[in-house]
Amino acid sequence: MTEVRSSPAVGRVLPSTEEESVALVDDLCLRYRNWGRWGQDDQRGTLNFITAEALIYAASMIRIGRVVSCGLPFNSDGPQSGGFGGRTNPVHWMLQDGGDIALGAQDHLGVCRYTDDAVSMPLQSGTQWDALAHIFYRGEMYNGHGLEHVTSTGATLNSIDRIADGVVGRGILLDIPRYRGVEWLEAGQSIDDVELAACATAQGVDVRSGDIVLIRTGQIAQVRATGSWGEYDSGPAPGLGVHAAHWFVENEIAALAADTWGTEVLPNDTPGIFQPLHLILLVNAGMTIGEIFDLEALAQTCAELGRYDFFFSAPPLPITGAVGSPVNPLAIF
Amino acid sequence: MTEVRSSPAVGRVLPSTEEESVALVDDLCLRYRNWGRWGQDDQRGTLNFITAEALIYAASMIRIGRVVSCGLPFNSDGPQSGGFGGRTNPVHWMLQDGGDIALGAQDHLGVCRYTDDAVSMPLQSGTQWDALAHIFYRGEMYNGHGLEHVTSTGATLNSIDRIADGVVGRGILLDIPRYRGVEWLEAGQSIDDVELAACATAQGVDVRSGDIVLIRTGQIAQVRATGSWGEYDSGPAPGLGVHAAHWFVENEIAALAADTWGTEVLPNDTPGIFQPLHLILLVNAGMTIGEIFDLEALAQTCAELGRYDFFFSAPPLPITGAVGSPVNPLAIF
Amino acid sequence: MTEVRSSPAVGRVLPSTEEESVALVDDLCLRYRNWGRWGQDDQRGTLNFITAEALIYAASMIRIGRVVSCGLPFNSDGPQSGGFGGRTNPVHWMLQDGGDIALGAQDHLGVCRYTDDAVSMPLQSGTQWDALAHIFYRGEMYNGHGLEHVTSTGATLNSIDRIADGVVGRGILLDIPRYRGVEWLEAGQSIDDVELAACATAQGVDVRSGDIVLIRTGQIAQVRATGSWGEYDSGPAPGLGVHAAHWFVENEIAALAADTWGTEVLPNDTPGIFQPLHLILLVNAGMTIGEIFDLEALAQTCAELGRYDFFFSAPPLPITGAVGSPVNPLAIF
Amino acid sequence: MTEVRSSPAVGRVLPSTEEESVALVDDLCLRYRNWGRWGQDDQRGTLNFITAEALIYAASMIRIGRVVSCGLPFNSDGPQSGGFGGRTNPVHWMLQDGGDIALGAQDHLGVCRYTDDAVSMPLQSGTQWDALAHIFYRGEMYNGHGLEHVTSTGATLNSIDRIADGVVGRGILLDIPRYRGVEWLEAGQSIDDVELAACATAQGVDVRSGDIVLIRTGQIAQVRATGSWGEYDSGPAPGLGVHAAHWFVENEIAALAADTWGTEVLPNDTPGIFQPLHLILLVNAGMTIGEIFDLEALAQTCAELGRYDFFFSAPPLPITGAVGSPVNPLAIF
Repeated sequence: MTEVRSSPAVGRVLPSTEEESVALVDDLCLRYRNWGRWGQDDQRGTLNFITAEALIYAASMIRIGRVVSCGLPFNSDGPQSGGFGGRTNPVHWMLQDGGDIALGAQDHLGVCRYTDDAVSMPLQSGTQWDALAHIFYRGEMYNGHGLEHVTSTGATLNSIDRIADGVVGRGILLDIPRYRGVEWLEAGQSIDDVELAACATAQGVDVRSGDIVLIRTGQIAQVRATGSWGEYDSGPAPGLGVHAAHWFVENEIAALAADTWGTEVLPNDTPGIFQPLHLILLVNAGMTIGEIFDLEALAQTCAELGRYDFFFSAPPLPITGAVGSPVNPLAIF
Repeated sequence: MTEVRSSPAVGRVLPSTEEESVALVDDLCLRYRNWGRWGQDDQRGTLNFITAEALIYAASMIRIGRVVSCGLPFNSDGPQSGGFGGRTNPVHWMLQDGGDIALGAQDHLGVCRYTDDAVSMPLQSGTQWDALAHIFYRGEMYNGHGLEHVTSTGATLNSIDRIADGVVGRGILLDIPRYRGVEWLEAGQSIDDVELAACATAQGVDVRSGDIVLIRTGQIAQVRATGSWGEYDSGPAPGLGVHAAHWFVENEIAALAADTWGTEVLPNDTPGIFQPLHLILLVNAGMTIGEIFDLEALAQTCAELGRYDFFFSAPPLPITGAVGSPVNPLAIF
Repeated sequence: MTEVRSSPAVGRVLPSTEEESVALVDDLCLRYRNWGRWGQDDQRGTLNFITAEALIYAASMIRIGRVVSCGLPFNSDGPQSGGFGGRTNPVHWMLQDGGDIALGAQDHLGVCRYTDDAVSMPLQSGTQWDALAHIFYRGEMYNGHGLEHVTSTGATLNSIDRIADGVVGRGILLDIPRYRGVEWLEAGQSIDDVELAACATAQGVDVRSGDIVLIRTGQIAQVRATGSWGEYDSGPAPGLGVHAAHWFVENEIAALAADTWGTEVLPNDTPGIFQPLHLILLVNAGMTIGEIFDLEALAQTCAELGRYDFFFSAPPLPITGAVGSPVNPLAIF
Repeated sequence: MTEVRSSPAVGRVLPSTEEESVALVDDLCLRYRNWGRWGQDDQRGTLNFITAEALIYAASMIRIGRVVSCGLPFNSDGPQSGGFGGRTNPVHWMLQDGGDIALGAQDHLGVCRYTDDAVSMPLQSGTQWDALAHIFYRGEMYNGHGLEHVTSTGATLNSIDRIADGVVGRGILLDIPRYRGVEWLEAGQSIDDVELAACATAQGVDVRSGDIVLIRTGQIAQVRATGSWGEYDSGPAPGLGVHAAHWFVENEIAALAADTWGTEVLPNDTPGIFQPLHLILLVNAGMTIGEIFDLEALAQTCAELGRYDFFFSAPPLPITGAVGSPVNPLAIF
């Protein structure tokens, strides 16, 4: 297992022009690229850091037998308000319900009566994992595969079903608002590698290779306080800045999730480059990224227990060829 | 924790008429009814058997760090062939894909490019949990709630989102074909409480209060051997007989799943009563039931390791008001 | 053919209490009830007024060969904003598109390349016809059928597919804002039978048995002027008052449509009774009602031509068991 | 108006190699290309042949006031069986139904009660029009537009909503099985221009510029006789051969539809080229093509009346950006 390493001295300056952004992001993409590291055929990326040893260690996190879900309920009151093209809230409908029973529609079934239902939903409309096929950079996704692998019939490589036996391991929460002493971070406020390391230290949590890291910005607390999703689904948000990349790579983090729609600070701190961490971490390092995780109850539990690590189980639905999946992530103490 | 108890001597005769079926099932429903046991407001039923202590013990199952998924892939080649009213295979489509990128549709995004997708699916079309709102018996579901709680807008009680912090605990596999020395059970072959106990003993696994029990009939192996789902989605199947109920209740099993569409033997061994275990266990005992679990890889792993218990994590999607949920169940050794 | 008749002297007082509303609506329901008029098995209601003779006369309306569509485009920018439970705007997606072709996904097809697509939509989310199974009054729909005929699997009687060979005949537009000399009627402003007759006279149009009547309130013009659908999908609206019923029945109108979400004035002018005309006309008289028709281009054409009658063709999609259908209504001059 | 012209003597030989197919199809594509004929911005193609004069003449077809629908019901028993990638039968569900009313879910509505529903369907799963954006030939669709105009968000040109004020005009039925004296044509049997002309003559129908031509092969009669859709959705079929193109172009046909899934004979009579008429007629001539029309009742009516022409109204749903639309086509005598 890897020890916590100090943040890099290099690359601490933020770009002020698109040209500088491109130079920085290109540099980090290449520097942190894991293509081929786990084989040319690998489709799991940094989940490979969750070794058998890491998983056994993760199990030792279960000490008091308490479970906390980090999944938002999936329903028509979800965060989607049309801001992100094509993403709507889930539509749920009944195939059979109590009314059918009342009207005698199941009288052929003897004394047994049932209800049944269906859902239609964009896979990234709520709490969800991005598959490694979700992002392309200069025409390539993780491990160097081209656009032709994601067509209207789905992704033939790096799809979410390729990590059907994950995402499970040790989870840690970095509760940034608590670290800063605020209720939540405001949209546009960014988090860098230095702060991540400092927050972990302050919380008394060691960071290990294969950890699944959850970043709380508190934006969902803000939504609840204001009573409206507002532009949560696609607008400005607090989140990770481009220099957070160092910390995730150097600590050999297996997967990353946050309580915002895009994990990264928005507007991004790289003028002219949208979502640079997705390019650096997901495409190049091969890191699975989760979004719209509800970390409020988890943060409360961590604070109450004085513990920021836990067993974490968040298996995606193995939808063949999908580039994302809704998920109900469980933290177990 | 509860010790394994012997199967009951009572109730071992199978009914031969509808009248006898009704008498037996009514008797078992009342005998095993847990309504009110965990409070009038309880919506978790036998999942309450998974105490903190049981969960901590479950964690001790993780010894070698190996994960096996029991989820069938969700796609258009799934088991649904129109046999069960309204259930179709999932439909997956892309909101954005590599072709859009190739045609320049995302050129406004700087260097970042993404793909996005959606799914429409009956919630019980593949590997899934039944919610406690899925079945009614004489107009009532678990804990005595009436039909008016499940309308076209969903279930207001006992819906799947009420167990969002489950289903996680110790899992055990009972591999009946292996116990019998056959490749798979044929449709119509049933399993009773005596065989469940004997199989557990033969496999060297103790059964504990709060266990999640997976029953392998091998029907999915048969589907693969024949190359066709045939009537898998709604037709005859091997499975649990009505007398299996005793074993599940007396061992305080938390949840139950099988590798068939309905868990129970079909045709049922209760003439005139369809799916009696759903009435006895789900409605009355409050036991969450899983179906269409793919237990092939798990059975192979168990045989290979000579171990039939494991940590089991199968969180449903918390779809508000849903009466079932697709799931990707993970067994962790 | 029926001559235009004068409005009734009776029933001209509006109710001021729920008790009075109930009395009035009950009276009109019974007075105008057509159950059995066209047979106990009839499922077409007042469309039966469109006799062969009426249809031949309708054809004589086609004199200059100009077609005007009254259908709003179906897309994600439609009127639905979540105000009406379960109604969302249509979701349209591609099964194959130009990007797939660009990426070579169809290279097996020789030189032929294709695109393909799908839609998911509430049937009454845009321009649409209500089926006679859409409304119940005191547990009965048109021709006296009970609730058990509309379950989760659809309607077995009075469904939209029962009028698959309609709705086609002579159409007339009553442009109320133009008659009043305003741009549009404001929400809450109602139209009664006297005004309908006066408007027809002012427009120089005779009203005949079997006519399909389109009522323009101008609310869509208002939406366009303000740039927002606002509460168009479920909120206050101008429209027909309860006393409009007389005119429709006495003129033997075959079908009725308007440019609002519910055709009737909202709040209704019957305290305590929601949508009384749906009860009187659709349920009891058996009149098919259309909603969210875009009558702006039609009104302009009528004004330009000085003619308010035309051939009208608005066939619903024969979706088996549906209680409504999207439609693209065509007026032909 | 154009008189019926004789079939061409040229081009009567069928290709026997892919090379010959390509040469023939390329030749016909260029020969019959209408790009620019109605302007560079035209998106209606041969529907432009339906002039005001033609539409007025079409109205004269309405002589006895009888309506015949050519739409198959849209439901789960439709022709789709998974043969054509991504096309499924429609899924229809209820948002509110009689059961909800029975259970009191609408008791807040006073005495008014309603039902409501939704559908999800591939746009070409049943009776439907192909939009001019449905087919590409060598990277171009009608009027020379490229692939970039049809992405995952739909078609920006030649989409079905561009013909929202159609398809309406004079229709004629060519009942080939009746002409041949058989019940139906068998899969693989083709129809050419000479036979089309002869059939029209035998039926006593003149063909005019702007006519909408319906071709009956009888395949739906065969489906009904055999009781199974079989491979109807994507397999071998009777239909038009490549040389049928001459007749449609020279007669200035406005639109074309048949009672098969692809209108053309399958296997095609152009080795190595799939669906050549779609390339020649839809892409190059700009002719809207309809498929899966149910022409059985229409054929019976025509035979009974001894008349094969009628007013024809088949307006597509104006789904923004769609490349096809379900339709309920009406023939009116």
